[in-house]
Amino acid sequence: MAKTLKGNCVLAQSGGPTAVINSSIAGAIKEAFRHPEIKKVYGAVNGILGVLNEEMIDLGKESTSTIELLRKTPSSALGSCRYKLKGDDYERILKVLEAHNIRYFIMNGGNDSMDTADKVDKLAEERGYMLRVMGIPKTVDNDLAYTDHSPGYGSVARWLAIAVRDAGLDTAAIYTSDTVKVIETMGRNAGWITASTALAREHKDDPPNLIYLPEKPFNEEKFIADVDRIYKQTGRVVITVCEGLRDEKGEYLTASSRRIDTDGFGHKQLGGVSDVLCSLIADNLNLKARFDKPGTIQRVSILCASGVDLCEAYLAGKRAVRHAVRGESGKMITLERVRKKPYRCTTGLVELEKVANAEKKVPDEYINEAGNDITEKFLEYAFPLIGGSLPRYARLKKLMVKKLL
Amino acid sequence: MAKTLKGNCVLAQSGGPTAVINSSIAGAIKEAFRHPEIKKVYGAVNGILGVLNEEMIDLGKESTSTIELLRKTPSSALGSCRYKLKGDDYERILKVLEAHNIRYFIMNGGNDSMDTADKVDKLAEERGYMLRVMGIPKTVDNDLAYTDHSPGYGSVARWLAIAVRDAGLDTAAIYTSDTVKVIETMGRNAGWITASTALAREHKDDPPNLIYLPEKPFNEEKFIADVDRIYKQTGRVVITVCEGLRDEKGEYLTASSRRIDTDGFGHKQLGGVSDVLCSLIADNLNLKARFDKPGTIQRVSILCASGVDLCEAYLAGKRAVRHAVRGESGKMITLERVRKKPYRCTTGLVELEKVANAEKKVPDEYINEAGNDITEKFLEYAFPLIGGSLPRYARLKKLMVKKLL
Repeated sequence: MAKTLKGNCVLAQSGGPTAVINSSIAGAIKEAFRHPEIKKVYGAVNGILGVLNEEMIDLGKESTSTIELLRKTPSSALGSCRYKLKGDDYERILKVLEAHNIRYFIMNGGNDSMDTADKVDKLAEERGYMLRVMGIPKTVDNDLAYTDHSPGYGSVARWLAIAVRDAGLDTAAIYTSDTVKVIETMGRNAGWITASTALAREHKDDPPNLIYLPEKPFNEEKFIADVDRIYKQTGRVVITVCEGLRDEKGEYLTASSRRIDTDGFGHKQLGGVSDVLCSLIADNLNLKARFDKPGTIQRVSILCASGVDLCEAYLAGKRAVRHAVRGESGKMITLERVRKKPYRCTTGLVELEKVANAEKKVPDEYINEAGNDITEKFLEYAFPLIGGSLPRYARLKKLMVKKLL
Repeated sequence: MAKTLKGNCVLAQSGGPTAVINSSIAGAIKEAFRHPEIKKVYGAVNGILGVLNEEMIDLGKESTSTIELLRKTPSSALGSCRYKLKGDDYERILKVLEAHNIRYFIMNGGNDSMDTADKVDKLAEERGYMLRVMGIPKTVDNDLAYTDHSPGYGSVARWLAIAVRDAGLDTAAIYTSDTVKVIETMGRNAGWITASTALAREHKDDPPNLIYLPEKPFNEEKFIADVDRIYKQTGRVVITVCEGLRDEKGEYLTASSRRIDTDGFGHKQLGGVSDVLCSLIADNLNLKARFDKPGTIQRVSILCASGVDLCEAYLAGKRAVRHAVRGESGKMITLERVRKKPYRCTTGLVELEKVANAEKKVPDEYINEAGNDITEKFLEYAFPLIGGSLPRYARLKKLMVKKLL
């Protein structure tokens, strides 16, 4: 058992918001309140910038009901940022932590954030400042390594499964028009989000009919042939596609060239892939296609949030604090699938250093050979994460009336 | 009391799908089954094309539970079309109706569909074929005249209210980026759908910050000044905009010029407005903006459907059949608001001829003077239609920790 460490705790949220990141923070807050070693529980305003600028809120002043309601509140309640710390920033952060006797630093974010947390942890050790740093995984992209999946993913997957099932019905509705639909999902280099659209299917041939992930280079000719084939077979095509699609040279299909569209980590803003695809379809197949790009709406819906995801996010938050109190530092909570069917999950630990800046892509075994769909194995992986079945809809038998004319 | 008319009944769905159009059809089917005058209840496959091509299904062969589940099934279960009848088509339709002894023709659709229904009604009368034609209003656009509102609208409004509230939280989350968001809604010439995004606000200053409807000509300079002002005040801007926005010359900002993107009624496919606006913002204000274009997903969500809308759609379906049995013809069911608070609604009747091809735009009293927001009066009109409050989220008090450095 590690030495008892008394002091305050700061929680930070980082990167893009999700439906369940506040559930993680609620878990961390509740756990922190349980331990007498932790005196005050602070929330950094706008992620690491809150620590850097000494802007923190006192979470002990919030009501129990507000903390409880955080479990059902999407986005990042503490505020977040995309900011890469520079040389002197780390020293300054240590100074702020020291000034406020902060001994527990809990970072809720993705791989860039784990890198930040790792560096703070190492500097504290170097300087002999007793600090325990823990990471809570968070990313809709599901691209964190060393964890079975990440909180946030199950909910965006559930949102898309429902939306794409509905969009499939929509596309089936109008006989004379709107026969080809492209749905663009989020996702930079990893296609986990796009892959989850396959969960929309109730039957094997249900939409989406084609799924394109960034793991497989996009080929125009193959794409056009795919769309043409499905259209000729069924008269309808629903295509789901990742905003981060790249061509065979590894270039994003439509990364914005505006300097202003690049973030602090040098990531270019993506988008517009679906517009390119609609043009390809119109120009080559003389078919009218339209696109839906739900954008950020897909990542912050509580109405469609996965119950499993909400619970796991909460658990990950609690465990991060508990492990820190018990003496761990420099680690991120992982989710470990201990049983496949029925699904059961527990938490584990991994070094922040390992997670930092690593990226887990969709493995080959989850992508079909043609590179235009996912495999049964992916469905087995992803289905439990969306927390149960989708709404059930009526299917008419449609017995035809005998023609008389 | 009109003469009893015995025979079969055909139901048709037309135009774009909605979350509640099947609820209307379920109402019509159930009502039809109640009347001994009606022998068989048929569903036209793909709207008026089903009658024209003599493709109808026997709804009497569907189970009670399937019909019941239609009330919670989005899109158009019978299939729909966008097809403008040509000269001989009307004669052919009459022939099909006659061959199948169809005496009740119920059309569930928007203004184009009411025009079709009206012409069938008149031709039948001209030829002395005893037929009763009734319309059930349906349009997410809410642009049907002579009715307080149209089934389908309350649900798309609820979807957008929730999505824009969530998107507002999303935009508030990341301090360093994603500070300007444009959300593009459906709507061709009428801004009802876009206006409904104002229902996202819990407090007066909540997003959306700017709302642009097609009823007011779009002016670039004013737009840029609006965005600049809000951004300087709050550092965040959420803009909702109608896909059918037009400039001062009355031209759509971005109508597709592809021939293939024009439907049977000559309506051009719209879209891309938000991309234009993002570019305007980047070029003139040096601000990064991104857009969400939920597209058709917004109109077919059962999870976000309005309970009020679902009930009224069902009621409108029932009433259409009941009035037909009682002797009415050539009329559409209207929704009449008989009390404002608490909201109470009943049905009325209007001549199909009046509704056909008419278009109800958002009146001036619902749009603010600057043309960049809606008025309190609109909120009073629209709020009851979304069927109750939105999900409640946590709001932290955010008491700041005293700075020590």
